[in-house]
Amino acid sequence: MINITFPDGSVKEFAEGSTPLDIAKALSNSLAKEVLSATFNGQPWDATRAINEDGTLVFHKWEDEEGKHTFRHSAAHLMAEALEQLYPGTKFGIGPALENGFYYDVELPDGKVITDEDFPTIEKKMLEIARQNNPYVRKEVSKAEALEYFNSKNDNYKAELISELEDGKITEYCQGGYTDLCRGPHLPSTGMIKAVKITSIAGAYWRGNENNKMLTRVYGVAFPKQKMLDEYMVLLEEAKKRDHRKIGKDMELFAFSARVGQGLPLWLPKGTVLRETLTKFLAKIQKKYGYQQVITPHIGNKDLYVTSGHYAKYGKDSFQPIHTPNEGEEYLLKPMNCPHHCEIYRIKPRSYKDLPLRLAEFGTVYRYEQSGELHGLTRVRSFTQDDAHMFVRPDQIKEEFCKVIDIILYIFKILNFKEYTAQVSLRDPNNRQKYIGTDEHWDMAEKAIIEAAAEKGLPTIVETGEAAFYGPKLDFMVKDALGRKWQLGTIQVDYNLPERFDLEFTGSDDQKHRPVMIHRAPFGSMERFVAVLIETTAGQFPLWLTPTQIQVLPISDKFNEYAYKVAEMLNDADFRAEVDDRNEKIGRKIRDNETKHIPFMLIVGEKEQAEGAVSVRKQGKADLGTMSIEDFKKLIASEVEKELNPEA
Amino acid sequence: MINITFPDGSVKEFAEGSTPLDIAKALSNSLAKEVLSATFNGQPWDATRAINEDGTLVFHKWEDEEGKHTFRHSAAHLMAEALEQLYPGTKFGIGPALENGFYYDVELPDGKVITDEDFPTIEKKMLEIARQNNPYVRKEVSKAEALEYFNSKNDNYKAELISELEDGKITEYCQGGYTDLCRGPHLPSTGMIKAVKITSIAGAYWRGNENNKMLTRVYGVAFPKQKMLDEYMVLLEEAKKRDHRKIGKDMELFAFSARVGQGLPLWLPKGTVLRETLTKFLAKIQKKYGYQQVITPHIGNKDLYVTSGHYAKYGKDSFQPIHTPNEGEEYLLKPMNCPHHCEIYRIKPRSYKDLPLRLAEFGTVYRYEQSGELHGLTRVRSFTQDDAHMFVRPDQIKEEFCKVIDIILYIFKILNFKEYTAQVSLRDPNNRQKYIGTDEHWDMAEKAIIEAAAEKGLPTIVETGEAAFYGPKLDFMVKDALGRKWQLGTIQVDYNLPERFDLEFTGSDDQKHRPVMIHRAPFGSMERFVAVLIETTAGQFPLWLTPTQIQVLPISDKFNEYAYKVAEMLNDADFRAEVDDRNEKIGRKIRDNETKHIPFMLIVGEKEQAEGAVSVRKQGKADLGTMSIEDFKKLIASEVEKELNPEA
Repeated sequence: MINITFPDGSVKEFAEGSTPLDIAKALSNSLAKEVLSATFNGQPWDATRAINEDGTLVFHKWEDEEGKHTFRHSAAHLMAEALEQLYPGTKFGIGPALENGFYYDVELPDGKVITDEDFPTIEKKMLEIARQNNPYVRKEVSKAEALEYFNSKNDNYKAELISELEDGKITEYCQGGYTDLCRGPHLPSTGMIKAVKITSIAGAYWRGNENNKMLTRVYGVAFPKQKMLDEYMVLLEEAKKRDHRKIGKDMELFAFSARVGQGLPLWLPKGTVLRETLTKFLAKIQKKYGYQQVITPHIGNKDLYVTSGHYAKYGKDSFQPIHTPNEGEEYLLKPMNCPHHCEIYRIKPRSYKDLPLRLAEFGTVYRYEQSGELHGLTRVRSFTQDDAHMFVRPDQIKEEFCKVIDIILYIFKILNFKEYTAQVSLRDPNNRQKYIGTDEHWDMAEKAIIEAAAEKGLPTIVETGEAAFYGPKLDFMVKDALGRKWQLGTIQVDYNLPERFDLEFTGSDDQKHRPVMIHRAPFGSMERFVAVLIETTAGQFPLWLTPTQIQVLPISDKFNEYAYKVAEMLNDADFRAEVDDRNEKIGRKIRDNETKHIPFMLIVGEKEQAEGAVSVRKQGKADLGTMSIEDFKKLIASEVEKELNPEA
Repeated sequence: MINITFPDGSVKEFAEGSTPLDIAKALSNSLAKEVLSATFNGQPWDATRAINEDGTLVFHKWEDEEGKHTFRHSAAHLMAEALEQLYPGTKFGIGPALENGFYYDVELPDGKVITDEDFPTIEKKMLEIARQNNPYVRKEVSKAEALEYFNSKNDNYKAELISELEDGKITEYCQGGYTDLCRGPHLPSTGMIKAVKITSIAGAYWRGNENNKMLTRVYGVAFPKQKMLDEYMVLLEEAKKRDHRKIGKDMELFAFSARVGQGLPLWLPKGTVLRETLTKFLAKIQKKYGYQQVITPHIGNKDLYVTSGHYAKYGKDSFQPIHTPNEGEEYLLKPMNCPHHCEIYRIKPRSYKDLPLRLAEFGTVYRYEQSGELHGLTRVRSFTQDDAHMFVRPDQIKEEFCKVIDIILYIFKILNFKEYTAQVSLRDPNNRQKYIGTDEHWDMAEKAIIEAAAEKGLPTIVETGEAAFYGPKLDFMVKDALGRKWQLGTIQVDYNLPERFDLEFTGSDDQKHRPVMIHRAPFGSMERFVAVLIETTAGQFPLWLTPTQIQVLPISDKFNEYAYKVAEMLNDADFRAEVDDRNEKIGRKIRDNETKHIPFMLIVGEKEQAEGAVSVRKQGKADLGTMSIEDFKKLIASEVEKELNPEA
């Protein structure tokens, strides 16, 4: 008999050799139907693998990340089996599970090219095999056996992988007629896979190395119910519509140019308005919280980054140094603003009364990313952080964290991010030598963060061992209407840079002390944040933020002049109005502008001109009637005010 | 006899061999006393050099740049003579006149080092020789003679210069016991130099090459009257007080850090407020004039600058290319924003109705300057241009120029630049192949600029041959209270980039046409403009612009809280208030703050707190009495309004 401990701490006895599935069945039939895999004594474990010793057992279902991962990984094997049957001679690279599905890198037999048109065939074959309900069978094999098998089927990729493995630790999984090199775990059987979809294909170099052969990467998704796939496809369709690259292009917010360079966004006029409105919004809150704006150059002498440690850490993988024509100087595009802010701290002696010193900068930084990794505004080579560095006394960390959390929660409220979580990342207490700073300081900072998060009532996850080497941190994650998670703001404690830059303040005891730095960026970067805003709002920005707030529509050419006058009066009052002076019927103009998410349309004709008035249509609302320009200004001002002060 | 034509067109007859001085004497004794040198038939000419043929003659007096130049150049020779007498064995490099004085590069005999303490000795010696009233004597010499003379006195620098000259075109000038290799012209005699001052010394490599020996550069000034020197010294003292580097440090506007890199300004909090207030001010005017803001990266692919032509022209002398770790790409720090804006123009097809398209950007650019040439904010390696590019139809140039001139004149009025001139730079009609673009376009653009300048009533100088190769331009120069001239805004027509970027628009004729670009920057750069503002205002910025508008002074600690509340209310209303909460007597606080150019001091104590009021002191004015915070807000708002709308 073996003793099995469950997550709730209870311990039960089972026959030696019981599988997690056996154990689940013993507990409840309905549970057993849901078990996809397990973790035994901290190790991933097949639901059908025998347990021969005492230990802790956690079941994984579709609802868990681990369960989904097993399901998708098994689906990848299923797809491989289908491909082998459809295209005999196919060779297999790797086929992992992904956050939303899975892929397999394959080399197809001579002459075969997979296209979109093959997708239904592959799906059909996968479901056909799935219905055979073949078990996934785990098998421990020797290196020689494994090599022999894959060499015999000419699968040089698998053979290459095996050649690098340690003998005695190699496992294979078979289902039906297909055998794969794999660590598992896998589903009990293929029958659990009820719905599949091949989503796309791409080229991928074997092992990511461009000197190797390019394989075909086949992407797919799989679900335990057809309904789930249907829902997923709807979501995918919706996500496609919200793709910030598409909306950004349609709304003329930003663009890229090959000649300027990949991953270097050009902010077009409307995108610039959006970005600067966000910048002003944040700058205003920050001013209220005692932040001081600074501006520093986008390059720094190599010495600066040698001092900060960035050069040793990132130098080789970054944009390479800029040399001067003579004088032999070396500069680097700045990867971070913090070293520059440390130098500003050093401009003059600081006293304990001067702290916290809060230096803020909308600072553009440059980081090299491989071209294949670039993606719209979320993965770029230049981005502008809404950065700030607080230089605080050790006893001020908690209060400062509370203040930053207040700013972030205010932003979330204004931008309608209702679902969010905060992750507190602490150091690994078993590996203290990894971290810089004294135990006393770490304890103080970790306690301060945990208390601040609790005081502010944040839904918090604590992750031990996830702290940076220079200090603990707090990260925010928001969930959008499609259930997608977006990593946003971050707050980090830093003991390292004050040390490296030898920063000091004179305490009330007249002695020199070392300040602590707090890095924070509520948006993360303007680029990323705008991308997230587009994806979460589908381009329907709030009135205060949207680039064009008002479209003035003259009912005919005769009233263009009046329309421009109206727009000018509104623009002078710091609203953002445009005129649609196209030579089109007013009905057409209204229809065209309705699709553009512009909050207000003002229609002007003879009557309006005569009265100095405008006829107001609010997006998604009925006609608001005719009013004077002054009254309309008051209306829009009060709507903006309501958005920015939701409690007032 | 010879016929001499004067600038007024009159022609007179004089004896062959007459000197300009003889001729001046014949015209008027008082004129003769003032003549320092002349230009004969377009050639610089000593006042004492014989004229043997017919020709045009222009006299130069102290009032002319040419006259001053002659005077200063002769003073340089005088200083050289003094140095030779004081420190026998001194070798001489070059000794030119400068805008404000002159210098001479010398190698002093072994062991001698000139310091500040030697300045009076040198001055005394110069005046002693000057009083001898020795004539400056011009002498044509053969190369061999010249070489023999300077070799005989071991002056290898002069010998090196002579060795590179063409025989038959070498002249020397002697005064007293001193002989120099020189093209002249020089004063009639040393006696005209009545006042001299050695101002500074510096090291300078022979011929600017750091592989050569470092010589001592001795700077001086000289005047025809002691009173002029006295006035100059007062001005110099005043200029020193206004040095933007000193004021910038005292007011904590900006700083430099060796670790960040020379010539790369760090904008401190108060400087950032100043700069951003200027930015907003200009952005607001620009919005009114239909400009659209964009934001582009600070780097660009090398291809971009190969296309624009900047790489071929400046590549070697600029910051060198940035390489990527792999993928073999090359990027350059952007030296100009225009190529990026051309790429934005190309984002979509443009029609004649879309023009003018005005793209504006406060774009930071990077240009390599040698460290010796860097100077505060006026000569830096990174600067932010208040840049804009107008893409216009050829027929829109004049109207667009008028609009830009309006913006510049508005800025001049608000910032109290009363004395300014505009220079129109046209192409050299005798050298048309130097320029890109058709004759027709050039004629149209030059005419447009001249007409625009005339319509706007600008005090204008027209300079032929000063246009850029890509188009004519208009530059603005302002004069400050010390009589110093500062180059500011510029407007340039460009036919080149639209060609290189193949920019097009569809005309009303449905055909493709090439737009014309106009570059313009009213401030020039934020860095340079802030430097000019500091130097011209001595740091006394107008109320709307100054970083700290209001200092709140609690009369004792008891009222600190109320003082902070007052400051917060003012800051919330977008004014800029600070609190002086030092534990000092109120009298001391008032005195300290009076020196800081802060426009308003608000004194708060028991009475003010009880009444929710403030006691207002305006800088340089009497006490304005006690008023409510609301009334004070109205007061300051109306003063700002008056400054920004001087006509209202």
